[in-house]
Amino acid sequence: QACNKDLIINTDVLVEDIHFSELSTSSQNAGWKAVTANFSDLACSGVEKILGITVGLVAPPSTPWCWVDGAYEGINNALSQFGGKLLGGDCSSGKQKILSITAIGTKGPLDLHRSNAQPGDYLVSSGPHGLSRLGLDLMRSDNFTKSLRLSDSLKEKAIKCHQQPEPPLKALSKLITSKPTMLPWKAAATDSSDGFLEAIECLCTSSKCSAILEESNIPIDENLPKDKKLINWCLEGGEDFELVVSLPPIWANAWIASMPSCKKIGIMAQGPPQVIWSNGEKILRNSAVKFEHFSNN
Amino acid sequence: QACNKDLIINTDVLVEDIHFSELSTSSQNAGWKAVTANFSDLACSGVEKILGITVGLVAPPSTPWCWVDGAYEGINNALSQFGGKLLGGDCSSGKQKILSITAIGTKGPLDLHRSNAQPGDYLVSSGPHGLSRLGLDLMRSDNFTKSLRLSDSLKEKAIKCHQQPEPPLKALSKLITSKPTMLPWKAAATDSSDGFLEAIECLCTSSKCSAILEESNIPIDENLPKDKKLINWCLEGGEDFELVVSLPPIWANAWIASMPSCKKIGIMAQGPPQVIWSNGEKILRNSAVKFEHFSNN
Repeated sequence: QACNKDLIINTDVLVEDIHFSELSTSSQNAGWKAVTANFSDLACSGVEKILGITVGLVAPPSTPWCWVDGAYEGINNALSQFGGKLLGGDCSSGKQKILSITAIGTKGPLDLHRSNAQPGDYLVSSGPHGLSRLGLDLMRSDNFTKSLRLSDSLKEKAIKCHQQPEPPLKALSKLITSKPTMLPWKAAATDSSDGFLEAIECLCTSSKCSAILEESNIPIDENLPKDKKLINWCLEGGEDFELVVSLPPIWANAWIASMPSCKKIGIMAQGPPQVIWSNGEKILRNSAVKFEHFSNN
Repeated sequence: QACNKDLIINTDVLVEDIHFSELSTSSQNAGWKAVTANFSDLACSGVEKILGITVGLVAPPSTPWCWVDGAYEGINNALSQFGGKLLGGDCSSGKQKILSITAIGTKGPLDLHRSNAQPGDYLVSSGPHGLSRLGLDLMRSDNFTKSLRLSDSLKEKAIKCHQQPEPPLKALSKLITSKPTMLPWKAAATDSSDGFLEAIECLCTSSKCSAILEESNIPIDENLPKDKKLINWCLEGGEDFELVVSLPPIWANAWIASMPSCKKIGIMAQGPPQVIWSNGEKILRNSAVKFEHFSNN
């Protein structure tokens, strides 16, 4: 994404069999996700008003019309719910289905950029992580998730998180309204669509500082058992579309107070770009290593 | 394409083996064309300033890095020449190469829309048609084009038209500066990227009137022999990226005077949406029929 004066623009490409598949994603949900993934990126840049989207659609000639119809139904549902108009687009045949969506919006007062984190900031997540990955597993009827004995409502919530994720626009709005007057309009943020840990690493790298996480405060849903696989999904599952924000403590506390799903997960500190536990142990973003880490605890 | 207040946005998707192929298009030229096709659409909407583009790139994992590098070289060359910045983008692996580019710009004073044509308007083309299709044939070393005995400079021009088409931004600028003061900021235009005849049909359909073409005035390059195949390429070859404009005669004459490549090709008249020769004969956009038409002349 990038800005030109007060505009923000973002493009996301969803490719069949890479970002979605016939098995786990209806065309309605593919359309919905293509829009909301974009809006999530606009939220990370501090969008004030979503103007709209263009849609680049590629599909094989064998694609049934109902698939295309469903994709646009999902696109329009997301626009109705979160704002913005369908401004144009293009379509072509191709070997696999692709939705390339570009969203534009205007920038609000807040300068929200991944390079704005400062030592002393609190790290806050706008919501829990790992539910989307859990939802995917539940849809695959995996043996592991069957063994967890989750409540039906939690299962539904996880599947909805995977199929129809919501962009963190309300969280952004609360972040803006909760800013203490004496602070400048500046904070660091990214979304966690590529994983919670990756989002934090991204803030560390862009802002040239370390992040120190409290192991007891990782943003896993409170109703989930503290299973090591679920913790791993929280850290690296991806597709959760929450804001991960680094901001001054007083503002962080105000934001958390105004938005109950927000949780303080750690602090930013001087040091090399890395994510560490409060005991000083490095957290490596690499499933095998991390899985080991948790199995040793 | 569409406008939001004073913004214009357009998306074009180029798919390998449909819009370009390894055989006839280098990655530099694919990148160039993806940008200039978009800018041509912005020109048809009366763009004043091109702000920039986002690039959605899909490529198979086997794609050599030099292909990607070349595509961005072509993209950047087009931006250097015609304006606009690379504002962001996304990439993904996929089964075939795809460039999905979205361009945004601001709208100038001119309300340029395909539905603005009126009976009595002159139809003007900003330049010759058919060269791009000829260039493709020359690159394929087809026997037909060998038999034409074209000059080397004409061959080079045609191949350049095919490989590195230019968006009609200068023609738009001249259209704006040549408008007589007493006329409103309003004309009908489309570009001829999908073919000259299709562009005119498009104006007729959107504006609910007929177009009457002078057979002696079709915008074929003056150095080309009046071969029936070349005339067909002029009418339907496509990828010429010229403006086809319907506008009041006094403005049309001023535009033609200020831009020597412009040519009056006919007039708009009351009647059903159709394109006819001045002898009343319908011009059908269907290769077989049209080819017959010319072979009977």
